Amino acid sequence: MFAKLCRPVPSINFRTVTCFRKPRQLNKYYNIIARANCSASSSFLCDKNVIFVAGLGDIGLDTSRELLKRDLKNLVILDRVDKPELVCELKELNPKVKVTFMPYDVTVPLAESKKLLKKIFDKLKCVDILINGAGILDDHKIEATIAVNYTGLVNTTTAIMDFWDIRKGGPGGIICNIGSVTGFNAITQVPVYSGSKAAVVNFTRSLAKLAHITGVTAYTVNPGITRTSLVAKFNSWLDVEPDVAELLLEHPTQSTKECAASFVKAIEKNKNGGLWFLDQGTLENITWKKYWDPCI
Amino acid sequence: MFAKLCRPVPSINFRTVTCFRKPRQLNKYYNIIARANCSASSSFLCDKNVIFVAGLGDIGLDTSRELLKRDLKNLVILDRVDKPELVCELKELNPKVKVTFMPYDVTVPLAESKKLLKKIFDKLKCVDILINGAGILDDHKIEATIAVNYTGLVNTTTAIMDFWDIRKGGPGGIICNIGSVTGFNAITQVPVYSGSKAAVVNFTRSLAKLAHITGVTAYTVNPGITRTSLVAKFNSWLDVEPDVAELLLEHPTQSTKECAASFVKAIEKNKNGGLWFLDQGTLENITWKKYWDPCI
Repeated sequence: MFAKLCRPVPSINFRTVTCFRKPRQLNKYYNIIARANCSASSSFLCDKNVIFVAGLGDIGLDTSRELLKRDLKNLVILDRVDKPELVCELKELNPKVKVTFMPYDVTVPLAESKKLLKKIFDKLKCVDILINGAGILDDHKIEATIAVNYTGLVNTTTAIMDFWDIRKGGPGGIICNIGSVTGFNAITQVPVYSGSKAAVVNFTRSLAKLAHITGVTAYTVNPGITRTSLVAKFNSWLDVEPDVAELLLEHPTQSTKECAASFVKAIEKNKNGGLWFLDQGTLENITWKKYWDPCI
Repeated sequence: MFAKLCRPVPSINFRTVTCFRKPRQLNKYYNIIARANCSASSSFLCDKNVIFVAGLGDIGLDTSRELLKRDLKNLVILDRVDKPELVCELKELNPKVKVTFMPYDVTVPLAESKKLLKKIFDKLKCVDILINGAGILDDHKIEATIAVNYTGLVNTTTAIMDFWDIRKGGPGGIICNIGSVTGFNAITQVPVYSGSKAAVVNFTRSLAKLAHITGVTAYTVNPGITRTSLVAKFNSWLDVEPDVAELLLEHPTQSTKECAASFVKAIEKNKNGGLWFLDQGTLENITWKKYWDPCI
């Protein structure tokens, strides 16, 4: 039965998923097909419109560079701080791709996120993928860590549903959330950060399971320890371990370039519910343990 | 070796753990003994000073009633809204226990949480257990859900460390955080809530592992579906399932009384790092899957 569902059905285009407003079970059927149709293609990103929140960040920048090795149609980078020289560099990497920068702080109220997205949708007409990548790592800053890493990600996701939700006549879409291995098992010394990433992992797994209702699929990319400026020096909670960064970097890590390569591979695999573990240059889909089942 | 560490050592009193400011490894040794010394005793709660955040809530109230079957010294209930008739009822339950109510909204800034705790510590001199139980379940309210369920819990925990952290000369203490089974595996229809509870579970597991540094042990109690007013009717995220409450309640649940009995049993077991699953009147300690190891 599943094998049948997974057969490619070329006539189904994810962008025209609007027509899928049928009884739920049927939606599920069509969506599984649509996903299977899109996935695991090296040309998957060709001609796609991608919004990348924090696309100028440490992992973000190298991932933007990696994305630009593919012929996207548009790459819209949203970041808190403009870095014109980096945006210029990205624009020059692939003349086939239109790279745009717009300032965005994920901690703004939901209504402001919606306004910004409206501008983007008005301009591009359609958006295929949203990458939520804003994150901070500083356990001295409790509110900011949670507001950026979790609340901001939830708000940006919620905001784009206005444009994507098939129940509202939208075309569906794909959400790629940046979690962290600390969302699976914490770095004990940064419990606030690790907890915020556990929230992202759990939240995104739910989004994936709601895809048959919303038409929006979702997965997380969860980098292992990556040599970023974020990791080079950061505060532990209540300074429980002042040398946490140094200790962490004594163990095997990966470069941002290695991470970025796995990141874009994960995007190309386009697996709804994917729980991608990106560690030391490798990419693995994790199976989450089932502790209980709400049965609904 | 571990068996040796776990032998009861009657001369070690958890309240006098101040003297344990020794090299970390040694602290760990002494703390494990102290924990083992206290645990799994039916008289464990006798003469204890307990702060219970949200001790008048649905699960909170029945847990307060259950706690009052034991001869605590003080039960300080912190809750957003005073309910004088309930506080009166609790006061009358066990004349040996001094029950106090103080208003507390967990979303106040950290400094205010510290001020309130200072008042309590000034009055009681010592506090043995903090129960963090504030929670809301309404996925229409993204900011509030995260602020109450996760940020508020982290702030209250952080605030009490000023008084408990052995590095500051404190006596250590015990944190009991109310998580949820949705922190293990989500109720898909409330991804914001479920994510916030995953954060609590992950955060608390870290606290437990930091006990050898801070002197503060921690565990979560994670109720399964419990027939509370919270669960009777609640909003799903973007109304993905308007009947989520009804659907959930079609499956086996537990009463708040059953939950409260398991809750207090878990407190009495006093297991650092315990990940208690309280479902249908039973109590089970969950083993979390190890997906990776930061090695520090």
